Amino acid sequence: MRLSQFFLPTLKETPSEAQIVSHRLMLRAGMVRQLSAGIYSWLPLGYRVLKKIEQIVREEQDAIGCNELLMPTIQPAELWQESGRYEDYGLEMLRITDRHDRNILFGPTNEEVITDIFRKEVKSYKQVPQLLYHIQWKFRDEIRPRFGVMRGREFLMKDAYSFDIDYESSRHSYNKMFLAYCRTFSRLGVKAIPMVADTGPIGGDLSHEFIILAETGESEVFCDKTWLDKDLTGKGVDLNDRTNLEGWVQTTLADYAATDEKHEAENCPVSGDDLIATRGIEVGHIFHFGTKYSEPMGATVLGPDGKDVPVMMGSYGIGVSRLVGALIEASHDENGIVWPEEVAPFRVGLINLRTGDDACDAACEDIYGKLKNAKIDVLYDDRDMRAGGKFADMDLIGLPWQIVVGPKGLANGVVELKNRKTGERSEVTLEAALNQIGA
Amino acid sequence: MRLSQFFLPTLKETPSEAQIVSHRLMLRAGMVRQLSAGIYSWLPLGYRVLKKIEQIVREEQDAIGCNELLMPTIQPAELWQESGRYEDYGLEMLRITDRHDRNILFGPTNEEVITDIFRKEVKSYKQVPQLLYHIQWKFRDEIRPRFGVMRGREFLMKDAYSFDIDYESSRHSYNKMFLAYCRTFSRLGVKAIPMVADTGPIGGDLSHEFIILAETGESEVFCDKTWLDKDLTGKGVDLNDRTNLEGWVQTTLADYAATDEKHEAENCPVSGDDLIATRGIEVGHIFHFGTKYSEPMGATVLGPDGKDVPVMMGSYGIGVSRLVGALIEASHDENGIVWPEEVAPFRVGLINLRTGDDACDAACEDIYGKLKNAKIDVLYDDRDMRAGGKFADMDLIGLPWQIVVGPKGLANGVVELKNRKTGERSEVTLEAALNQIGA
Repeated sequence: MRLSQFFLPTLKETPSEAQIVSHRLMLRAGMVRQLSAGIYSWLPLGYRVLKKIEQIVREEQDAIGCNELLMPTIQPAELWQESGRYEDYGLEMLRITDRHDRNILFGPTNEEVITDIFRKEVKSYKQVPQLLYHIQWKFRDEIRPRFGVMRGREFLMKDAYSFDIDYESSRHSYNKMFLAYCRTFSRLGVKAIPMVADTGPIGGDLSHEFIILAETGESEVFCDKTWLDKDLTGKGVDLNDRTNLEGWVQTTLADYAATDEKHEAENCPVSGDDLIATRGIEVGHIFHFGTKYSEPMGATVLGPDGKDVPVMMGSYGIGVSRLVGALIEASHDENGIVWPEEVAPFRVGLINLRTGDDACDAACEDIYGKLKNAKIDVLYDDRDMRAGGKFADMDLIGLPWQIVVGPKGLANGVVELKNRKTGERSEVTLEAALNQIGA
Repeated sequence: MRLSQFFLPTLKETPSEAQIVSHRLMLRAGMVRQLSAGIYSWLPLGYRVLKKIEQIVREEQDAIGCNELLMPTIQPAELWQESGRYEDYGLEMLRITDRHDRNILFGPTNEEVITDIFRKEVKSYKQVPQLLYHIQWKFRDEIRPRFGVMRGREFLMKDAYSFDIDYESSRHSYNKMFLAYCRTFSRLGVKAIPMVADTGPIGGDLSHEFIILAETGESEVFCDKTWLDKDLTGKGVDLNDRTNLEGWVQTTLADYAATDEKHEAENCPVSGDDLIATRGIEVGHIFHFGTKYSEPMGATVLGPDGKDVPVMMGSYGIGVSRLVGALIEASHDENGIVWPEEVAPFRVGLINLRTGDDACDAACEDIYGKLKNAKIDVLYDDRDMRAGGKFADMDLIGLPWQIVVGPKGLANGVVELKNRKTGERSEVTLEAALNQIGA
């Protein structure tokens, strides 16, 4: 992509309405613009990141055999009256009346709709387990939206639902999802630590929040420092072997990690330098809730003994749009964003120090073509403006690699290659630069 | 994908609520389920088709240099009051009041929001033309939703917007989009004919509806039969050469094509057998509307002469979810859907005639693995049920190729290869079958 043809309205000034660094940087980097309180338009740079995150989330859901579908944003009130949540949900639910005076709502979550789909189509124990997910915009009418996309009103969420015949099977579905979450966040280049969470009146131990450590996080968290170096990619785990998977989950969870809700200093098994006390951002939550929805809504299957049984369910959320902000909170410096490779909007930023100079233009076109041929996403700053502004913008938007092309270097047969994360710069031949980037 | 692990609730009975064939087939093939009037959940098979169409639409927008972003579904009423459409739009607009009693709405279209983004970020003639698009769910509260996804209330639409400094430049943007639309529909495997449409009080000739011929279409259309064989891929056209592109557009539009709104029998230049009179489904609309929004909303740029000028705009829509139904209307037979290759949810259906038979299972696993290795999407019917039901389901869901594996054939070293569109079947070796499919 040529920057001259890309819609990238960066800002030099720090917008006064932004209280936290991710919000400031997303506005400054031209990633989002607020349309009204807690509601954002995703400009091209931001939308590229959002889609990359979404795609990684999707691939890891697919990998555990979860089926993707798409439920609509608008839901009928009747389903929520059936589950008993229509009155309970409170003012965060955006309630709407359509032209025929029917009560509808903008879905804040989808337990009711997915249970309705399930109960109409699945009738026998032979058709479960079912794992279904979608990635869809939701709306929660937060009384005081803030922190940009981190606590917006309209937000993109992946929510999955499992349906099983009994607790053991449901626990296996939960464990699959636990593995998928560990792998998802590993691929996203962040450490999201699963912490025991409240199960409410349902009880049991099947509820975990995945939390990214960040000083700007919304809540206090505590964990064993062993988490920092723990490999969460689940290499070699056999998804379909219940015992093997359960073993891996238990081993992974053996080290201490708790939110302030669950943490009790006097009972904490870790202490001193081994205990990390910091803040965290919740980016995922997995939760087994048994028959909470299947019973009132009549989602039953015929068991092997010929009797109808309500299915055991779980729900599994990832805040996709929130993750964009959370990743920035976890990875930035004083000059801007530092994107992990997998979610960077482009892998390489190509800076032409002297647009209009024949040698510089020709060299840049050559590099641009080679990177495109190698299927490496590149943003080519071909704008006719001063070098200082180009450097600042490129650091601000945080692409992993920068190739800087100027007349002096070209005269010596070199370009400058900069690694955004380490800040390391080197003068190398074009071939060496492309090599290092992997082109 | 193994069918035993895929959520595909097909129906034998024809649902009584469906009046047109695409609606019936989408329900029977387990592609969608209605949640409430005009609002559908997209089940996995349907969602795969929707995403394939969306991706083709996206690629052709990107190819003309249109920048993708994403605007939210919920919009503030104020912007519509500025443009003057808040009162005009009528009951089709879903009007909402949030918890702070602010007037908001579920966007039925996005001219106001994109104009707002533009006016805040673009200030100079040097920053135009701008071509921006998004693919987002919209809501129109139709008084009587019907025909399934063809006239639903919540629907997926690609809408693009152009911003130019003057009419000539705006016309060039329009022509680029005209080319992108021709290419998009060609890739989708349907003939969508651009027909002159009403420009309302704005006048001029820059408004075309793209219409798929189908007897179940909503309106009468008339066109020269030369359209049927016309190549609309725009091969060799130079996007950036205004004259070249304008020439191609004019040549393409030289043959007669008009909706009943515009058709006048007595003035029609085509007659007799040369004139096709049938019905059509509108799947796209491109429209130049000048300064209709930029003037009231103050979307101006500083011209080269130092004076502010309101930008010339156009909008360009494609009904993405509607296209799923339209493609089925244009391509089905008495047994079910016949997908064009590019949008088929899977390219190949693999039928195991005797699940549980060692030889059949082994052969199918082998074929399944080979197709997956060749990156060919395959749906493997590994269910333990009678062959008749498998054949019927596979014809119903309309995958382009079927490979049928049974014990008799295997004994002779052959499988059956069926082309869904032509109905042609042949007994061939596995290698020959894979060859023909392109694996």
